[in-house]
Amino acid sequence: MSEGVHDPLVTWRGTVSPDWVDYNGHLRDAYYGLIFSFATDAWMDQIGLDEPGRAETGHTIYTLESHQNFLLEVAVDTAVEVHTQVLGADHKRVQLFHTLLRSDNAAVLATTELMLCNIDTTGPRSAAFAPSVAALLQPMVQAHGHWPRPPQVGRSIALPTATP
Amino acid sequence: MSEGVHDPLVTWRGTVSPDWVDYNGHLRDAYYGLIFSFATDAWMDQIGLDEPGRAETGHTIYTLESHQNFLLEVAVDTAVEVHTQVLGADHKRVQLFHTLLRSDNAAVLATTELMLCNIDTTGPRSAAFAPSVAALLQPMVQAHGHWPRPPQVGRSIALPTATP
Repeated sequence: MSEGVHDPLVTWRGTVSPDWVDYNGHLRDAYYGLIFSFATDAWMDQIGLDEPGRAETGHTIYTLESHQNFLLEVAVDTAVEVHTQVLGADHKRVQLFHTLLRSDNAAVLATTELMLCNIDTTGPRSAAFAPSVAALLQPMVQAHGHWPRPPQVGRSIALPTATP
Repeated sequence: MSEGVHDPLVTWRGTVSPDWVDYNGHLRDAYYGLIFSFATDAWMDQIGLDEPGRAETGHTIYTLESHQNFLLEVAVDTAVEVHTQVLGADHKRVQLFHTLLRSDNAAVLATTELMLCNIDTTGPRSAAFAPSVAALLQPMVQAHGHWPRPPQVGRSIALPTATP
């Protein structure tokens, strides 16, 4: 498969709930985050950390850090979906990227870049991925490594500098 | 007042709702974000962009970008509070920082750095702060500029590099 051509990994589909809309009449910033959080849960299922997998391994995933970009407003009842890309991983961490899009026209509404960590719940303390999880994660890291990197990756927040 | 010594600007106080807890038994990442979102609302009140102020100016605030660090787990019913610092501003943007702390022992639970933008709701389009808002914001920028900058400011997400 050539660079840039790939089927998206869709991790969430739904509509914007009336409970998620603020006084501006559109999706509140924190609820973009809730949709992304649900997408992370669905991605965990794909690497064997669904509820039975968490019980069997004694492991779960914690979010250490997130960087969200809010690009377009979203009105109530809009049909949206999340596409997910693994940007990288080591023995216990995953750098994950979610894109929230409108389902009808694929307009990008928001993105989040996440640093996640595998956790042994008996501590809780950080721990290497269980072999069964690593076996599902490694091919995903390989495959997604050929996808284009989204432009929002690695951003930090700063006021624009005045042009001289 | 000397550097580092200042009364905090407290923008939210409450307890962790049972509705905000996930399968890991603690505050879900997105609900740290909801508490921060409520803190931003309370901060808007302080610069005159409460509901009457929004109606009078025709302006509101949108979040453009956020960077969250999740430092400690938080159990249900824990009493927490948010302290807020304005890191900088230009004619239409504010760089804001929130710290979520336990109310009993001041342990820092999470932080978020935000880029916010003033919006003329008739567009909606970005617009300079109304004079009445700027008059409240500018002294806050001045005062908070003397506070220490939190260590999480300006971070970007990356996997740790292996030490050689």
